[in-house]
Amino acid sequence: MKLISDLRELLTPEQVSVNETVLEHHSRDESYHTPQKPDVVVFPHSTEDVVKVITYANQHEIPVVPYAIGSSLEGQVIPIHGGISLDMSQMDKILEIRPDDFLVHVQPGVTKDQLNAELARYGLFFSVDPGANASVGGMAATNASGTTTVRYGVMRDQVRALKVVLPDASVITTGSLAAKSASGLNLNGLFVGSEGTLGVFTELWLKVYGLPEAAVAVRATFSTIEQCVKASTAIMGAGIPVTRIELADALIVAAINRYKGVDYPVAPTLFLEFQGAKKSINYDVELAVSIMQDEGMSHVEIVKDEASRRRLWDSRHVAALAFRASVPGKEQMATDICVPLSKLPEAVLDATKTIEEYHVHGAVVGHVGDGNYHTVLLVDPNDEDEMQRVAAVNAHLVQFSLQCGGTCTGEHGVGLGKKKYQALEHGESLRLMKAIKHLLDPKDLMNPGKLVDD
Amino acid sequence: MKLISDLRELLTPEQVSVNETVLEHHSRDESYHTPQKPDVVVFPHSTEDVVKVITYANQHEIPVVPYAIGSSLEGQVIPIHGGISLDMSQMDKILEIRPDDFLVHVQPGVTKDQLNAELARYGLFFSVDPGANASVGGMAATNASGTTTVRYGVMRDQVRALKVVLPDASVITTGSLAAKSASGLNLNGLFVGSEGTLGVFTELWLKVYGLPEAAVAVRATFSTIEQCVKASTAIMGAGIPVTRIELADALIVAAINRYKGVDYPVAPTLFLEFQGAKKSINYDVELAVSIMQDEGMSHVEIVKDEASRRRLWDSRHVAALAFRASVPGKEQMATDICVPLSKLPEAVLDATKTIEEYHVHGAVVGHVGDGNYHTVLLVDPNDEDEMQRVAAVNAHLVQFSLQCGGTCTGEHGVGLGKKKYQALEHGESLRLMKAIKHLLDPKDLMNPGKLVDD
Ligand SMILES: Cc1cc2nc3c(=O)[nH]c(=O)nc-3n(C[C@H](O)[C@H](O)[C@H](O)COP(=O)(O)OP(=O)(O)OC[C@H]3O[C@@H](n4cnc5c(N)ncnc54)[C@H](O)[C@@H]3O)c2cc1C
Ligand SMILES: Cc1cc2nc3c(=O)[nH]c(=O)nc-3n(C[C@H](O)[C@H](O)[C@H](O)COP(=O)(O)OP(=O)(O)OC[C@H]3O[C@@H](n4cnc5c(N)ncnc54)[C@H](O)[C@@H]3O)c2cc1C
Repeated sequence: MKLISDLRELLTPEQVSVNETVLEHHSRDESYHTPQKPDVVVFPHSTEDVVKVITYANQHEIPVVPYAIGSSLEGQVIPIHGGISLDMSQMDKILEIRPDDFLVHVQPGVTKDQLNAELARYGLFFSVDPGANASVGGMAATNASGTTTVRYGVMRDQVRALKVVLPDASVITTGSLAAKSASGLNLNGLFVGSEGTLGVFTELWLKVYGLPEAAVAVRATFSTIEQCVKASTAIMGAGIPVTRIELADALIVAAINRYKGVDYPVAPTLFLEFQGAKKSINYDVELAVSIMQDEGMSHVEIVKDEASRRRLWDSRHVAALAFRASVPGKEQMATDICVPLSKLPEAVLDATKTIEEYHVHGAVVGHVGDGNYHTVLLVDPNDEDEMQRVAAVNAHLVQFSLQCGGTCTGEHGVGLGKKKYQALEHGESLRLMKAIKHLLDPKDLMNPGKLVDD
Repeated sequence: MKLISDLRELLTPEQVSVNETVLEHHSRDESYHTPQKPDVVVFPHSTEDVVKVITYANQHEIPVVPYAIGSSLEGQVIPIHGGISLDMSQMDKILEIRPDDFLVHVQPGVTKDQLNAELARYGLFFSVDPGANASVGGMAATNASGTTTVRYGVMRDQVRALKVVLPDASVITTGSLAAKSASGLNLNGLFVGSEGTLGVFTELWLKVYGLPEAAVAVRATFSTIEQCVKASTAIMGAGIPVTRIELADALIVAAINRYKGVDYPVAPTLFLEFQGAKKSINYDVELAVSIMQDEGMSHVEIVKDEASRRRLWDSRHVAALAFRASVPGKEQMATDICVPLSKLPEAVLDATKTIEEYHVHGAVVGHVGDGNYHTVLLVDPNDEDEMQRVAAVNAHLVQFSLQCGGTCTGEHGVGLGKKKYQALEHGESLRLMKAIKHLLDPKDLMNPGKLVDD
């Protein structure tokens, strides 16, 4: 094929693969969405490599789909129109750490674990922590967030500047290294969350934080999921500066017990964390525990030593995986609504009822401090009836969220799975989003068919 | 004039003014920029009113310049091509306060003081606090920030959703009421900071915060401005969660003394604030004071009672006004660079030297916790030589900032005054900003000639 030989000439032969296993690997993400193989996988090593590939793709009108770790959950990396899967994972260098500026300069393929291992040597950490060991480029492209977002914000809040190769192969740098700016139009924010549809990030400047003096984790068990959510909302309302506040229902806790060989009481559970100066956080923990007691907490474990604390969060992070493992052979569809805090108790209750009603195998887990939670629904993509019931649960939850001013996706992004809700959520402003996509990518070559693209 | 009678018919006669005093009032902001009167001032009362005006302006190709309080500092509200000054100040209703969601829904003409007075009744506050009593619409349009940004972020961080009348008179709502979202392209962030060039905000949904249990203010005097900046950088580096950390040089302190009838030691000064639970902040204050002692602090006042604390911040807020009053008959040009924190000591030193070198009447004041500071330069716009020297200081500072990765404006925005630095700061990405402006406003009618518009 000419495409392959051309690309091999443009870059080096080793950077261009049509190996069946490699194609297969780039055909799917971690979800229920139907896989589709790219024509070729290309591994750039530099911005210049990316420019070459995009220039070529432009000339020959070939779709390009950026790919990093492939941990996304809405089909974002699936090359539904074939073409080039642009695998960014070999651009994985930490270019500079600037402790005095609380900044790092990195390539997009750097993963969060890799970054945090290096930052720890400087007494620093990077705050965004999805359940998978995602790349910073992928996280920026999906505006990822996670357990610590309640305190430190989402990926968009961490991105100071981006180097972006645009769909026309020109290279721009957005933002600056200043902590704040009122200069020009805000392009940083526009590119973050654009899911590879507006260009390819080849460098990122990210905000990092000083490691806190101390951290305390708390695992609190309740009789009902409603009590959990009410306790969480009360803790937030009291203004206690929690760094994490996470919900897991009984099914999830049971799955964690099996998967990690631990022995937590099988009941709705809140996992919390408090970070800061030693003296301050003890006071915060006390206050939070007393609030949870008022809401009916039946059991509590307070974890202060580092190793046990890590184990606790590790078990929270594998929650979805553990639950998936509990029913072998199924894929997962994760709902991801985020509602105004006051609506959360009602929303979660409605979700558990809906799962029952549709006889779906699902569990609830979530970042309840932000009003964001997932139902993890297990499904056999070949079972049409089950697929329909699972889709109905998803649709019902999204409807609920939009009716109370929430969003169809708090963190997983749109990809293929949430496209059908974009018009409902954004109304007239979807037209403007599409116009911006068309302005940047008139030939519709960058990750076509995703996010707001038809 | 047909324009006037048409508009009076579209709205009501009282909403349309060509009174000379009113035109004059809408010809200027609070800076040195040359005033220019609009042809007419229109006072909308609703989104529908705004739609009518924009539709009419579109049909007749008349420029429209949104105007709120007129406190901006870079000529943003000056109708340099005449046309309609769209005064939003009568759309000043607080539509809904949702304490459980930490959200308010407001019209754009609501001022920060008005909002905070109402929020206090719910134990809440709105965090962004420029030195003027600006409107929330104006603050959103300039991405304003201020003394508390070091803890709570800039205006863009507070805007959850916007109702916007676009240049083609269609109405969109951006964002949602959820605390986070990964749905669609981020339009909220694009409109915030667009200085009225992309449309008119007619409703805003803003994040608010619970009033802290306690607050302590600290005024610390040093022998040199360098010591101040180093102390500030050290406090930030130690991760102490200050809510405010502000610098004023000796000239500013002297001006405050005269203006407010207080008696602060006339020397470089840091004003700090700590908010939170009583027990935690005493510890933070202790730590900060000991750091400042190490950096050469010569005098400290710790202010705990509410009335004195308010007085202290009031005197910080009038700093620029007080300095301007110290030399009657001059206008102000405020530089506004923001640099990476590690470059701040060098930057401020360079600024004081530059002011001396060019024999300019200037003082230094700033939000040093963010790396953002102003030199307030007093100038007679009719004195060409002085204007040139003041412009040279501004240019020198901007050059310094851009060379170390900073921005030409941390918070005041671009307007007319910082347009000449946009190409230097944004490089290739300015082209994309201009393309987005053109996409939304092909006839170039919304606040033409500002921000990135030619
Ligand atoms: C077990 C599990 C738990 C998860 N938990 C969370 C969670 O808590 N929070 C959360 O937000 N997500 C979560 N996710 C989803 C996923 O981890 C995130 O969406 C993550 O941001 C994807 O990163 P990635 O590196 O895997 O990117 P990929 O999946 O490879 O790509 C994601 C998107 O980014 C684009 N992209 C990748 N690199 C670039 C680049 N350099 N330039 C431009 N576009 C690019 C791709 O085209 C694609 O559209 C979870 C996933 C799993 C499997
Ligand atoms: C003494 C003093 C101290 C200051 N201190 C600070 C400070 O600490 N931090 C800071 O950031 N700024 C500061 N400023 C600048 C100024 O207060 C801010 O720029 C403020 O955001 C302007 O708000 P405004 O309501 O006065 O808007 P205006 O000045 O009336 O308008 C500003 C811009 O917003 C646009 N606009 C207004 N309303 C709307 C709307 N509804 N829809 C669309 N566009 C609109 C206008 O077209 C214009 O471009 C200070 C100014 C003074 C005089």
